Amino acid sequence: MLPHHAIEKITSAVTPFTAVERVPLEEAAGRVLAQDIEAAIDLPPFANSAMDGYAVRAEEVTGPTRLRVVGKAFAGVPFEGGCGPGECVRIMTGAFLPPELDSVVMQEVVIREGEMASFAEAVRPRAFVRDRGSELRAGTRVLEAGTRIGAAEIGVLATVGVAEVPVRPKITVALFSTGDELKAPGTALAPGEIYDSNRHALRTMLQTLHCDVIDLGVIPDDLAAVRAAFAEADARADLVITSGGVSVGEADYIKTVLDEMGQVNFWKLAIKPGKPFAFGRLPNAWFCGLPGNPVSSMVTCYQLVQPLLAHLGGERRAPALTLEATLQDPIKKGPGRQEYQRGILSRNAAGVLEVTTTGAQGSDMTTSMSRANCFIVLPRDSGDQPIGAQVTVEPFNAALSGQLGGGL
Amino acid sequence: MLPHHAIEKITSAVTPFTAVERVPLEEAAGRVLAQDIEAAIDLPPFANSAMDGYAVRAEEVTGPTRLRVVGKAFAGVPFEGGCGPGECVRIMTGAFLPPELDSVVMQEVVIREGEMASFAEAVRPRAFVRDRGSELRAGTRVLEAGTRIGAAEIGVLATVGVAEVPVRPKITVALFSTGDELKAPGTALAPGEIYDSNRHALRTMLQTLHCDVIDLGVIPDDLAAVRAAFAEADARADLVITSGGVSVGEADYIKTVLDEMGQVNFWKLAIKPGKPFAFGRLPNAWFCGLPGNPVSSMVTCYQLVQPLLAHLGGERRAPALTLEATLQDPIKKGPGRQEYQRGILSRNAAGVLEVTTTGAQGSDMTTSMSRANCFIVLPRDSGDQPIGAQVTVEPFNAALSGQLGGGL
Ligand code: NWS
Ligand code: NWS
Repeated sequence: MLPHHAIEKITSAVTPFTAVERVPLEEAAGRVLAQDIEAAIDLPPFANSAMDGYAVRAEEVTGPTRLRVVGKAFAGVPFEGGCGPGECVRIMTGAFLPPELDSVVMQEVVIREGEMASFAEAVRPRAFVRDRGSELRAGTRVLEAGTRIGAAEIGVLATVGVAEVPVRPKITVALFSTGDELKAPGTALAPGEIYDSNRHALRTMLQTLHCDVIDLGVIPDDLAAVRAAFAEADARADLVITSGGVSVGEADYIKTVLDEMGQVNFWKLAIKPGKPFAFGRLPNAWFCGLPGNPVSSMVTCYQLVQPLLAHLGGERRAPALTLEATLQDPIKKGPGRQEYQRGILSRNAAGVLEVTTTGAQGSDMTTSMSRANCFIVLPRDSGDQPIGAQVTVEPFNAALSGQLGGGL
Repeated sequence: MLPHHAIEKITSAVTPFTAVERVPLEEAAGRVLAQDIEAAIDLPPFANSAMDGYAVRAEEVTGPTRLRVVGKAFAGVPFEGGCGPGECVRIMTGAFLPPELDSVVMQEVVIREGEMASFAEAVRPRAFVRDRGSELRAGTRVLEAGTRIGAAEIGVLATVGVAEVPVRPKITVALFSTGDELKAPGTALAPGEIYDSNRHALRTMLQTLHCDVIDLGVIPDDLAAVRAAFAEADARADLVITSGGVSVGEADYIKTVLDEMGQVNFWKLAIKPGKPFAFGRLPNAWFCGLPGNPVSSMVTCYQLVQPLLAHLGGERRAPALTLEATLQDPIKKGPGRQEYQRGILSRNAAGVLEVTTTGAQGSDMTTSMSRANCFIVLPRDSGDQPIGAQVTVEPFNAALSGQLGGGL
């Protein structure tokens, strides 16, 4: 089964959250909108000035003109009083346009002498006026249910005056690593031991993906211990994620326990790395069993868990943008699995997109992930790729990119 | 002054942090590495099996062969005892390869009968063995000082056993909006009033950019109040960011106070939107004055504050990847300023990158930001762009993209 087919299976099995929570605007970033948001007001709510200058009647300024300045309009402090023929109002950016006036002249082209303002040229009617409703009318939908709320959406919510935001619940993920060989970083290693890295990398990815993560630590390769960890994880979470123990080895208990407690929806994909990925259902929670090889666990979290989280959390999500780039070093590939090699994408001086692999692609080599900024996606039936081949690349989003701002 | 010139001025004025903090691995995500990290161990630390199967001597398996299975090697539980001629060891993925053996045969191609294992074919020496140091040798630099730590870097740090991570301090940013017209979302608006949106959008961006944000609220257009807000902000933060009051209006006090308390480094850029952007120095903190127009404040935060934060925080940052795309609707542009229009980038069925604008580009129109996924970057001297023109686009990174994973 190919990855896109697995994602279809996952999204057809998993029912998105339907519950609605209301959170203050200050806490809404990263959450998924549960309802469409309609503007309760016109935007802008009133005709106002786009410039610091003078508000006039355009019909009075059809060539060189002098007008008497009868008052001031500040943003938030409207001009009060009348403005008759031969008169104008000093106005600041954002200030309410007095109803009897229709145009603004920016101050840089006005000569001010005492009470009088001189205009050199004709004014275009409604110049530098932002009309009421010119962005949109009250009742217009400004944000769609299913939108993940980022900075721009927070800006829109505030602009239309929304202080409490209807959002979907956060997803709680319980996570554990399995393996007798796994020791905590900072401790000493005995022969045959390695540091548990998957749990730390996966926890970081899941937190970046706005999950509440319950980290259950390292569980030894012991059937009873794995059972107990599953029971606790299932009781506390919407999604249980494990790393390791999902292959065909004698200490690989994950599938055994999943068979006992729940059901396996699918196991093993035509994906490299990540072949032994398992997806299933527990009494309370969904389950993803990620392969133990460190790169495999990150690739499957990115390519399979990420769409699951979007779907479960009710997010309408645009497909990842892929690009074509010219390969700078040859790639060996056997047929049979869709590969996600780690690449470094850049644009050369001529503006052409180029990609190099990060070198050896062993699925134990975590440095191949940290040096990459994209996946080189090689379809199942493709073979070796020579230098100069056009290949498909998928730039990392913030789930994998550390760089400030994440993503590209 | 063009934006890239402004960034040069900023980065030559601002001295990056040099202090080093040590934080637990669990809290290192989003921080900037303060020192190169070298592996203290070989990776992998010992020769181990890449498969569940049987560890053999390749010289003994040069064709159909039967070997006696004398024990088991699990990950974390090495085989103990000897393995002589005619013998082999059952081995799991990740398990220590017994020193007298050199190759692994995956179990799927082995027939096991009682104590005996039958191999049908010759084994390639070191097949499915991950040799000690095959990823890298102890002493190799695995992460460079200046790297922003994301999931993959957390994985690398854990893999080499680092439990305490040397990082640069977080940047504390004090933020306030200015304007008598600004009311809190959720309250009623009097005529001439609008909701304060910039502070909410900017706070979200700055938090996404891993800053500690001190939100000082809305400050009225009153010289004494602006002075007091500056004094508090300067005392508490590394960077003070204001929104509004930076243009030429009579209630625009930001530059006045900056001149009194510190110094203006530059003011006004050839950028649209965002022209009145101001950068300067206060007694204790750096200062960025963002224009009040909502789109202008977000664009300048993205294009100018973001590189400042990277530089101040000690991050080595790859330049943003820009792409060329075919314009789908005409753009009006006057010369004189570099424009950042808001666009929607996609790839059509033929694989060609296409971009449409989000429509009207008024710098008060926040919805033009939430509907966009990229900037269309129009150089200063360019003019109107027809349908079909090749234009430069800069995909939003996670600072502006709400979507799960952020960025593309
Ligand atoms: N006969 C046969 N053998 C097979 C396969 C097959 O088809 N047939 N498939 C392959 C593939 S094919 Mo791949 O995705 O395409 O690269 S993964 C994969 C692998 C998955 O095995 P699994 O049971 O999931 O994991 P295990 O616990 O065995 O660990 C796996 C490795 O990862 C390390 N590891 C574990 N956890 C952590 C952690 N937390 N931090 C750091 N390292 C960790 C652990 O030390 C070990 O070296 O088995 C292989 N063996
Ligand atoms: N004569 C002359 N006049 C000029 C310019 C010039 O060259 N000459 N330049 C332009 C440009 S040109 Mo542009 O970036 O290229 O689009 S900004 C810009 C603008 C910047 O003025 P500023 O003093 O920074 O901001 P002010 O406080 O005046 O507010 C500005 C607007 O934004 C709103 N606003 C404020 N704060 C918030 C908030 N927190 N939330 C929501 N909205 C908010 C506020 O209501 C008002 O409508 O002045 C213009 N006027």
